[in-house]
Amino acid sequence: NSQLKIFSLNSNNPLAQEIAQEMGVELGKSSVKHFSDGEVQISIEESIRGCDVFIVQSTSAPVNEHLMELLIMVDAVKRASARTVNVVMPYYGYARQDRKAKAREPITAKLVANLLETAGATRVIVLDLHAPQIQGFFDILIDHLMAVPLLSDYFKSKGIPEDQIVVVSPDHGGVTRARKMAERLKAPIAIIDKRRPKPNVAEVMNIVGNVDGKVAILIDDIIDTAGTITIGADALRAAGAKEVYACCSHPVLSGPAIERIENSSIKELVVTNTIQLADDKKSPKITELSVAKLMADAISRVYENKSVSTLFD
Amino acid sequence: NSQLKIFSLNSNNPLAQEIAQEMGVELGKSSVKHFSDGEVQISIEESIRGCDVFIVQSTSAPVNEHLMELLIMVDAVKRASARTVNVVMPYYGYARQDRKAKAREPITAKLVANLLETAGATRVIVLDLHAPQIQGFFDILIDHLMAVPLLSDYFKSKGIPEDQIVVVSPDHGGVTRARKMAERLKAPIAIIDKRRPKPNVAEVMNIVGNVDGKVAILIDDIIDTAGTITIGADALRAAGAKEVYACCSHPVLSGPAIERIENSSIKELVVTNTIQLADDKKSPKITELSVAKLMADAISRVYENKSVSTLFD
Ligand SMILES: Nc1ncnc2c1ncn2[C@@H]1O[C@H](COP(=O)(O)O)[C@@H](O)[C@H]1O
Ligand SMILES: Nc1ncnc2c1ncn2[C@@H]1O[C@H](COP(=O)(O)O)[C@@H](O)[C@H]1O
Repeated sequence: NSQLKIFSLNSNNPLAQEIAQEMGVELGKSSVKHFSDGEVQISIEESIRGCDVFIVQSTSAPVNEHLMELLIMVDAVKRASARTVNVVMPYYGYARQDRKAKAREPITAKLVANLLETAGATRVIVLDLHAPQIQGFFDILIDHLMAVPLLSDYFKSKGIPEDQIVVVSPDHGGVTRARKMAERLKAPIAIIDKRRPKPNVAEVMNIVGNVDGKVAILIDDIIDTAGTITIGADALRAAGAKEVYACCSHPVLSGPAIERIENSSIKELVVTNTIQLADDKKSPKITELSVAKLMADAISRVYENKSVSTLFD
Repeated sequence: NSQLKIFSLNSNNPLAQEIAQEMGVELGKSSVKHFSDGEVQISIEESIRGCDVFIVQSTSAPVNEHLMELLIMVDAVKRASARTVNVVMPYYGYARQDRKAKAREPITAKLVANLLETAGATRVIVLDLHAPQIQGFFDILIDHLMAVPLLSDYFKSKGIPEDQIVVVSPDHGGVTRARKMAERLKAPIAIIDKRRPKPNVAEVMNIVGNVDGKVAILIDDIIDTAGTITIGADALRAAGAKEVYACCSHPVLSGPAIERIENSSIKELVVTNTIQLADDKKSPKITELSVAKLMADAISRVYENKSVSTLFD
């Protein structure tokens, strides 16, 4: 077998360190700096000839910086004669631009897939893509991990009686994800149904399913400005929910997010570390779970040419 | 003939405006903004179906931001059914990373070429690439403009007697460029020959050619931190040059550049507007010449399917 090497770029070094530790290896030696004019300067400081190389990088904010770092690293790894160039993207930026919602819009999620292939990636490992269809944007192999088991286990460990829980999707798009969690928690689901009665009239929140007297767990893939989730939490409380928890895979938490969450009726927000939380985005209300073991297992299985999907069974 | 449309992105809007004005057209309507999390949001606000579209963008600092804007715009233009997608890059960022100078380095200039093609560019127009070989990195058509005529005309207009001028290349790599300017000014050339006598000993500047009592004009493609050019100017003065001018196509001017230029023996630095100068990079010593007419002529000729190289004859 050829040798395994894991490299970290700048978006989420603590996660990359943790992954390497889980696997009992050291991170590969490389440096990612900037020239005086801001251009990315990468150099790989050990031989990787013939190796299976895994590059860990989330394309979180600043997304263009992190994406270009990744593309340049892939180019460098390819030109250094690696056997395979595996891109590990715990968070896939631009995933929400996955279709033309209006005329003359780009489809940036597809562009990113093409750019990664062009740079020389031979395989990608991602977690909870905004839409599973993005897998089909790639012609190279892609492994799609899920944080639902991790999040579900956390809520299980709280010991809330099963018959008191209801898992809630904040919109129609997230029902499949909510159902997966509900199955694991042996709980029913509910859906928040936003409707605009007339144009230019505020949306009304209509809750489909029974939440009265229950502990509601809102689940989403991305929490960005936290508008949807905090308004949803209020609607759940108004409909009689006793307590509201929220969880997501990717804590983007931009703009007013932290303020909204702190002022909301959400009791606790559970997130993963696919995106490294800046210090000003930490909050006593936010619990971070690590995906390091999940990513490490996925990397090991890809390296050993074993099935990754079995990680969720 | 199909319709011509010119769009500007955010790196150099004044130049794009000027180009449109030269051509007697309005810039196409589009908006380039950011979502709350910093992802680029582009929308094209007029039909471009069947059009020949020209997108004006320099990949100057912040280079990754400007490059991603460009790639996303190219994607949007392609998907909006443009007939051709022409990328006008007055300044081509990452051009200095055009070869593996050390083991395991990326070749980012080639990566950028591939990314542009992958996004959907059908042709590119550039000006004074750091190395003309970068033309060969593209499989699509590329037009390569030169600022030498513009810079030479400016120095001609100063009325310095021809027999007093010497055009100087700051290093061996720039001799071809210096010769082109020297021909236009009917002047001889000189070359600054940097040598390190022994490892870890400071470089010595050796001037090849006669500069004694002359007006020296240093010419380079890029002036970045301005170390080479200001040290070169001092060496020319020490060798007897009466006055030292400097000029370049691309004023990157990062880090200590402005301070170095202001404190140097350079009398005047002549640059072009391929890169928009931030306010803190303006200096009474710096003269900006516009490439708008040159770029406008090139766009017209490409649009009319005429030769662009005749612009320099
Ligand atoms: N970074 C972003 N932040 C906010 N909205 C976005 C972002 N990227 C794309 N969108 C928009 O979000 C919509 C897709 O979100 P969704 O309906 O949740 O799949 C599209 O109409 C996009 O225009
Ligand atoms: N943005 C940059 N700033 C400074 N040096 C760079 C930059 N990009 C590449 N280089 C280095 O500059 C060298 C090429 O410059 P040159 O010898 O002038 O062609 C290469 O060894 C690169 O590593």
